[in-house]
Amino acid sequence: MALYYAPEPGDNEAALARLYSVRESIDNIDAALVHLLAERFKFTKFVGRLKAEHGLPPADPARERVQIQRLRSLAAESHLDPEFAEKWFNFVVAEVIHHHVEAAEAVGERDEASDADAAPASEDIEP
Amino acid sequence: MALYYAPEPGDNEAALARLYSVRESIDNIDAALVHLLAERFKFTKFVGRLKAEHGLPPADPARERVQIQRLRSLAAESHLDPEFAEKWFNFVVAEVIHHHVEAAEAVGERDEASDADAAPASEDIEP
Repeated sequence: MALYYAPEPGDNEAALARLYSVRESIDNIDAALVHLLAERFKFTKFVGRLKAEHGLPPADPARERVQIQRLRSLAAESHLDPEFAEKWFNFVVAEVIHHHVEAAEAVGERDEASDADAAPASEDIEP
Repeated sequence: MALYYAPEPGDNEAALARLYSVRESIDNIDAALVHLLAERFKFTKFVGRLKAEHGLPPADPARERVQIQRLRSLAAESHLDPEFAEKWFNFVVAEVIHHHVEAAEAVGERDEASDADAAPASEDIEP
C-alpha cells in the first residue's frame, strides 16, 4: 500500500502522530460524504416532485439496473468491494423511499380531499 | 427549493429534459461517493495495520462518540436527517469491521502458528 510507510517499530510517538493525521483525513472524507449525500437527496426529492407534477412514471427499473452496474464497475476500478457498493446503494435507496413516504404523508395531512399531489407509492420510486 | 423552477405544466418534453439532466447530476454524485468510500477504506485499513504493528489499542470509544456527534451536526447543517447520518455511519463501520475480520482470517491462513500479526477482534475496531 503506497500510503503506508511505517514509523520505526517501537517509535510509538511517531505511530500516534501518524494515527492522528490519518484520523483528520478520515474526518475530512466523512464531512465530504455527508455533504454529498445531502446534495443527492436534494436531487432525488426534486425528481419525485418533477415526476409527480408531470405525470411521469415514478419508477424506472431499467435505470436502476444501469445505476447498480455502473456503481459496481466504479467500485472495482477504485478497489472497493462491488458487493459493498451495491449494498450501499440499496441502503441509500431505502432512505429515498423513506423520504417519498414522508412526503406522501405530508400531502395527505395537507389535503385529505385530493391525492393529485400525492407522492408515489414506496415500491415505485426512482433512486 | 431554489433548485426547482418547474417546466410549464403539460410541457413533458421540458420535464424529461430536466429529469435527464438531474440524473446526470445524481450519477456524478454517486461516482464521487464511491470514490470517497474507496479512499476512506484505504485509510481505515491503514489505521488497523498501524495499530496492530505498534500495539496501540484497536478501539477508541471516545473517538467514535465524537465522530457520530460531528456527523450528526454536519448533517443538520446541510439539511440531511441526523438520524440517517448516524445510521449511515454505522453501516460503513460494519464494513470496516468486515474488512478487519477478513484481514484476520488472511493472517490466520498465512501463519497459523503465530497470531502476532492478527487483526483485532471485530468488536474492538476503530471506524
